[in-house]
Amino acid sequence: MKACILAIGSEMLTPFRVDTNSLIVTERLNAIGYDVRLKAVVADDVDELAHVVESAHAWADLVVVTGGLGPTEDDITREAVARALDAPIDVDETILDRIRERFARRGMTMPAINRRQAMVPRGAVVLPNPNGTAPGLWFERGGAAIVLLPGPPREMTPMLEAVIRERLEPNSGGAGLFRRVLKIAGRAESDVDAQVQPVYATWVAQPVPISTTILAVLGQIELHLTAQAPGRADADVALDAAVRELQEVLGPSLYSTDGSPLEAVVGGLLRERKLTIAVAESCTGGLLTSRLTDVPGSSDYVECGVVCYSNRAKTELAGVPDTLILEHGAVSEPVAQAMARGIRSRAGTNIGIGVTGIAGPGGGTPEKPVGTVSVAVVLEDDLRARTFQFLGGREMVKFQAAQSALNMTRLLITRVQGQREWAERK
Amino acid sequence: MKACILAIGSEMLTPFRVDTNSLIVTERLNAIGYDVRLKAVVADDVDELAHVVESAHAWADLVVVTGGLGPTEDDITREAVARALDAPIDVDETILDRIRERFARRGMTMPAINRRQAMVPRGAVVLPNPNGTAPGLWFERGGAAIVLLPGPPREMTPMLEAVIRERLEPNSGGAGLFRRVLKIAGRAESDVDAQVQPVYATWVAQPVPISTTILAVLGQIELHLTAQAPGRADADVALDAAVRELQEVLGPSLYSTDGSPLEAVVGGLLRERKLTIAVAESCTGGLLTSRLTDVPGSSDYVECGVVCYSNRAKTELAGVPDTLILEHGAVSEPVAQAMARGIRSRAGTNIGIGVTGIAGPGGGTPEKPVGTVSVAVVLEDDLRARTFQFLGGREMVKFQAAQSALNMTRLLITRVQGQREWAERK
Repeated sequence: MKACILAIGSEMLTPFRVDTNSLIVTERLNAIGYDVRLKAVVADDVDELAHVVESAHAWADLVVVTGGLGPTEDDITREAVARALDAPIDVDETILDRIRERFARRGMTMPAINRRQAMVPRGAVVLPNPNGTAPGLWFERGGAAIVLLPGPPREMTPMLEAVIRERLEPNSGGAGLFRRVLKIAGRAESDVDAQVQPVYATWVAQPVPISTTILAVLGQIELHLTAQAPGRADADVALDAAVRELQEVLGPSLYSTDGSPLEAVVGGLLRERKLTIAVAESCTGGLLTSRLTDVPGSSDYVECGVVCYSNRAKTELAGVPDTLILEHGAVSEPVAQAMARGIRSRAGTNIGIGVTGIAGPGGGTPEKPVGTVSVAVVLEDDLRARTFQFLGGREMVKFQAAQSALNMTRLLITRVQGQREWAERK
Repeated sequence: MKACILAIGSEMLTPFRVDTNSLIVTERLNAIGYDVRLKAVVADDVDELAHVVESAHAWADLVVVTGGLGPTEDDITREAVARALDAPIDVDETILDRIRERFARRGMTMPAINRRQAMVPRGAVVLPNPNGTAPGLWFERGGAAIVLLPGPPREMTPMLEAVIRERLEPNSGGAGLFRRVLKIAGRAESDVDAQVQPVYATWVAQPVPISTTILAVLGQIELHLTAQAPGRADADVALDAAVRELQEVLGPSLYSTDGSPLEAVVGGLLRERKLTIAVAESCTGGLLTSRLTDVPGSSDYVECGVVCYSNRAKTELAGVPDTLILEHGAVSEPVAQAMARGIRSRAGTNIGIGVTGIAGPGGGTPEKPVGTVSVAVVLEDDLRARTFQFLGGREMVKFQAAQSALNMTRLLITRVQGQREWAERK
């Protein structure tokens, strides 16, 4: 079943505000089998909204409209929907009494403008609003439903839940959409897609069909799997099997099958194997340690971090010999290795990480352009080092460098080689 | 002139993601007089997108479409717009060569699927993409324009700016909405609003009217001023006067009048006064140093940072005496002060910052609950220390603590007292 979500309000058409109600509405509708095909933010304009509602009603099984039910002249949702459905508007005395009472309870007289909130297009069912003055409205026309909800989330959410429970779920047949987010590090989108496309292409024709979206996010690739199933149990069986197939083709580059960020995955491994960690970072400027410590309980395994921006700090805080910096330059694998080894031995941890590079925009040279980053990770006697060439601005280089360092740490802890070696071994 | 913004991608129709490109597009279009009347997120479905584009093209002077220009089967924007405009699709060999070259520069062969990105509906103008493989496209039909931009913001934004400069601005009447973002640290929203409301209330009736929105963002308050003016020069005169009025009432709590983040404001002060800085942070876990080093050129004044998560690290890296930790506890003003003084003297900088606290969710006690953070900043002989009580989860506490440390540093460098002292002095 197809759903459309409309958020009403010119303030959400400024550069400053996004509509977030639709995220809650989407989650709830997905679980009872509605597929949200379109969402839109519409200005406070009767003609325009009437036009959009009419056009959505033509293809959607359900149109959810949030906002524009207040008492002011800007609140045009009732009027616009009435126009779209060609329904006359009546004033509902019961609603009027309820609003008057609400004001009276707070020792106030209802302002005249609140009369607008008692206007009901003919044929609508009134949905009570225990948390505000604006009632919601429900329409059924030509096999489709239109539901109007107030904009404030604390009024919208309980009313949405009541509508789902009492009106939508009983007719939904119980089939819904259930999701899984997988994350992949250290690979290009087109490369991952070429590898997984033949796999996920077969899933759409399964008894429990799964659709797949691939998404390149900064420093990682995400695969979003959406199973359409009569209930969560059936969905989980199909999704678990799908995840296993992807693990088989993707190998160690697949680092998360439940949406966890890389720092949480690394943190989980450190905790599980009772390992401690220390970081010496230069171009990432503290971001790597900050991400490691974003994980609750990370004080159990993060001993310390040093941000050694200057050469002097690399020597004093991480024990990198001056001569090494002179010989190879501050941005080099030997220096990254010395940082990793130095911080590990000074902090007395199992693991040490060293990151040194050029985040830009200044500081690049022809041999070492902006985006050049050397990373080294050492665990006991096992050391791995790599030099990357990242694209993008300063913050992007910082993020990608931190991401690569976390990913190398993950692979080292599990003593697994990277994607290339893994693919060759197979 | 009316504009419509469409964001393409099923991933933005899940409960996980919102479209934020439209905020940037709105701001730029507003400035050249376009009124954004509708924005929508549309699924990766050729028929549906073709239908939405057709319907937007019927009323809008400009339709901006972002996303869906990648190389995979999900990327259906080119095809859908071609269908809406009834235009056949050709493969553009020049684009194909450019994509091949881009891959070759990174030592890779162009995957076959990237051929999709060279498909151009007939009649389109190709917009170069210096930051990625997907070119943009520009159509003019029946007095209206349709522009297709890639989804990743770092590719989308420069292309949008080029389109505005070269194609849209020359034909706009010059009248538009011009905005200014002011940022305030260390105060409550209601407090700021009570103080500034009488000021901004008078601006709506000016010859160049200015509307004002107040917004509580994590760790700061923002005031968004929007001037409606025939051109940038008139808007700037009115906005400059408005900003001066706000500076007068808000005093030193107003830290940015051009939207700059706090770390850039602090960085500017350090550079201007030729001061260097070093950080010893515990509960912020590297975030404070990471924010300082987000600013380009920060290697000129950031000497080093240490993340001393354990007590041992506080002693070894920042020289905090054991006895002080035993006496006052690791989260205390004396320890924050010792961290600030210790890192300053070890690093040989002008300024030292110490931050110690409980980010949660664990580690709180009745006397020192989660969210308790002590911050100390020392500049030569001048030391300031404060203990805060922040609300929210782990990442929120980290951010607010870093924000407060940056704000205390800003006030110390300018040798200005906080808001309370300033208000009393007046």
